[in-house]
Amino acid sequence: MKLYSSSISGNSYKARLLLSQLGIPCTIVAVDILKGESRTPEFLKINPNGRTPALDDDGFVLAESNAILAYLARGTRFLPDDRRRWALAFQWMFFEQYSHEPYIATSRFLLQHRPDSPERAAALTARREGGWAALKVMEGHLSKNDFFVGDYTIADIALFAYTHVSHEGGFPLDDFPKIRAWLERVKSQPGFIKM
Amino acid sequence: MKLYSSSISGNSYKARLLLSQLGIPCTIVAVDILKGESRTPEFLKINPNGRTPALDDDGFVLAESNAILAYLARGTRFLPDDRRRWALAFQWMFFEQYSHEPYIATSRFLLQHRPDSPERAAALTARREGGWAALKVMEGHLSKNDFFVGDYTIADIALFAYTHVSHEGGFPLDDFPKIRAWLERVKSQPGFIKM
Repeated sequence: MKLYSSSISGNSYKARLLLSQLGIPCTIVAVDILKGESRTPEFLKINPNGRTPALDDDGFVLAESNAILAYLARGTRFLPDDRRRWALAFQWMFFEQYSHEPYIATSRFLLQHRPDSPERAAALTARREGGWAALKVMEGHLSKNDFFVGDYTIADIALFAYTHVSHEGGFPLDDFPKIRAWLERVKSQPGFIKM
Repeated sequence: MKLYSSSISGNSYKARLLLSQLGIPCTIVAVDILKGESRTPEFLKINPNGRTPALDDDGFVLAESNAILAYLARGTRFLPDDRRRWALAFQWMFFEQYSHEPYIATSRFLLQHRPDSPERAAALTARREGGWAALKVMEGHLSKNDFFVGDYTIADIALFAYTHVSHEGGFPLDDFPKIRAWLERVKSQPGFIKM
């Protein structure tokens, strides 16, 4: 098992975290996205969409962080088998990629890795409303649930990756006590590793 | 089975198309997103994220179009059971929601449903590069494959929804012959219905 992984990417971290919790040995191939290493002709042969992470399982190559989580988790306790819970895990992973990551993760990337400019300021402003909206949806759900779907699953891993560093994107969690408590529950899971 | 569905939304159409192909009777509840009906207090009780579609299967409520596809397709030929093909179907569905829909579907929404303005023009410009990039990835894949994963699956349904109307978002497919041939293959599937 080989993972093409960016050290600064929460999407790559998702896969590293689950691999740790499953106890699956994996060779990490560092891809420096800031140096354009995910857009080289060589890397585009691995993932034509030019993004990390990508998993290589004995020649089978899979892209998209949450598809990698699903692939690794299938048949384990990290992806419930019950049809409804199974579907809800995917619901929350699609929520993460559509309603959370594009606001919170990209704001973090801009703040941490791009110089200040009017364009950056405009891009950050355009992401405020969506980011807070996603956090409010999470806070509401976690006010009635300890995890996103029953016990700890890949839905939690997907949402933890960028939520636990959301302050680095300008989204501090002061007003989200349920999210903060959930972050601690995730951090206390066996096999947890830091980003 | 009840589907909260927007008639103008490709995301809602995905679910209607698969329900047709599975022969599952379903009550369509029309939600007029242009009138804000997906953000009313009543609808937010159904989907706190305020988006269509949402499926209600005998009281079990599921949001996110591609999670609904997965839920309905599980155990059918529309979602392969083979672990690798199964994972690739999800890979393409996550690709659709992250790298395709935010550019092509939102451009179509802006062009069809928002008046011309400097802000709209800027938003459309910001979506050009990503939209063409997604189409190029699809064209490359379809130059070696008839469908996205083996035979026709929910990955095709997810990607068909906004690709077949991409010209309405300013992305005509003249330079994408493989995509155009694939659209025809999808349209010829049993149970196909128009958006």
